[in-house]
Amino acid sequence: MKRKKGQLFLVGIGPGHEDIMTPAALDAIKQSDLVIGYKTYIKLVKNLLEGKEVISADMTEEIDRARKAIELAKQGQSVTLISSGDVGVYGMSGLVFEILKETGWKNGDAPDIHLVPGITAMNACASLVGAPLTHDYCCISLSDLLTPWEVIEKRINAAAMADFVIGLYNPKSKHRTEQITKVQKIISEYRTPHTPVALVKNAYRKKEHIVITDLAHFLEEEVGMLTTVIIGNSHTFIFENYMVTPRGYTNKYQWDGQIIKGQTRARSLVVDEVTS
Amino acid sequence: MKRKKGQLFLVGIGPGHEDIMTPAALDAIKQSDLVIGYKTYIKLVKNLLEGKEVISADMTEEIDRARKAIELAKQGQSVTLISSGDVGVYGMSGLVFEILKETGWKNGDAPDIHLVPGITAMNACASLVGAPLTHDYCCISLSDLLTPWEVIEKRINAAAMADFVIGLYNPKSKHRTEQITKVQKIISEYRTPHTPVALVKNAYRKKEHIVITDLAHFLEEEVGMLTTVIIGNSHTFIFENYMVTPRGYTNKYQWDGQIIKGQTRARSLVVDEVTS
Repeated sequence: MKRKKGQLFLVGIGPGHEDIMTPAALDAIKQSDLVIGYKTYIKLVKNLLEGKEVISADMTEEIDRARKAIELAKQGQSVTLISSGDVGVYGMSGLVFEILKETGWKNGDAPDIHLVPGITAMNACASLVGAPLTHDYCCISLSDLLTPWEVIEKRINAAAMADFVIGLYNPKSKHRTEQITKVQKIISEYRTPHTPVALVKNAYRKKEHIVITDLAHFLEEEVGMLTTVIIGNSHTFIFENYMVTPRGYTNKYQWDGQIIKGQTRARSLVVDEVTS
Repeated sequence: MKRKKGQLFLVGIGPGHEDIMTPAALDAIKQSDLVIGYKTYIKLVKNLLEGKEVISADMTEEIDRARKAIELAKQGQSVTLISSGDVGVYGMSGLVFEILKETGWKNGDAPDIHLVPGITAMNACASLVGAPLTHDYCCISLSDLLTPWEVIEKRINAAAMADFVIGLYNPKSKHRTEQITKVQKIISEYRTPHTPVALVKNAYRKKEHIVITDLAHFLEEEVGMLTTVIIGNSHTFIFENYMVTPRGYTNKYQWDGQIIKGQTRARSLVVDEVTS
């Protein structure tokens, strides 16, 4: 009997609520024999796992988890490796490709690889606080477990200087508490104390907690492992407890849709009198 | 008879394929009397629109579109305003809040506002080319219709200098062809010609087109309005036609999961001999 070729699904489940998990993610889990993931993420999808083998792992066991997923899929099983958010954003898919490379896997070899994107924390959290990402933004992880702090600090400086909206992943942990304070100091060199800041913990989950505050005061609030921090750019404003970054329409248009004198529809912005 | 309070759903439909559109997005469209959107996006969901009023609009009519959506929802209808990708990423939600502010809307007033996130082009495209976003990244729109070019150029410089993975939205249009050439030059000052670059057009749509190339050669390929460009950081590599940005595990671990001498699990990376 010909053995079935193994399948490995790398799946982002989004924040964890089924309403914003994609059908493709649900489908991958449904057709898998085995689901592997960090224990917190496994819990989020536990009602989808009946009748399946499940391997839930601890936080610092990513390499083991990825190797196991590849090995078992190679043997002919359908395996889903899940991450919360998007599996490609600080998720497991990079590590899986690194291990595939290390072990000499070639295109066409078992297992087949399937990537299923999910809604990453930055976008999920943004949707809970208004419209902070209507202009250029960046995502920076403050975890220095695998990245030298100097690299992270350089990115914070660059992002602050160039007026990006800044999303911070992993802002703090039990052993890592100083980084977010340093970040607040760096960004304050470039932006006013009133710059809007959103803190979102457990987005779309039971213990969801949202705070809209500002650059001068956000460290007074609770920030932890599961918090995503969104720091506005120099144009971001707070309106009725929503955080809003303008796209720039008022540079070119009046609110009745009429174009401002000197500007042309569908052509480069003329910058003489523009402040943005 | 008491009139129903109007509802305004701001909905990101993702790239357009139902398999990676969220149930929350589908549900918002289903319960709406009226769906408004740019005509290309309306086409993507046309099989969900039977029996509904539909207003499809042209590209440069965003203010009209947003005003109309607010006005009709205020009158008591359930209105969905759709964007492709995530409605909050260069999408319509920022503009809606700006207009609500302009017109004196307060929390509790009609319409109720509901934000439904979607998978943005950056994440959708990344999932089609491998794992380019496993480390810090930024999104920059090259459209200078509403943003001064100097602001965009400054962000490109900062992102290149600080070694972000860079995603470019709206890299080129009929009237706007020089920007992407300037960007290639700027980034080449900081990164090698072999830096991996992915070009993804029509992600998850019928005419999907993917090219994996590099910084020196990507301008030889077709780049247009509907292309998303992903430029790797200094560690990004190409493996079996996948683009992969390592998370940094090899800074701390061997491939058997053993920790490298001098490093400690769950503690800051010790950087003496680290190159990342």
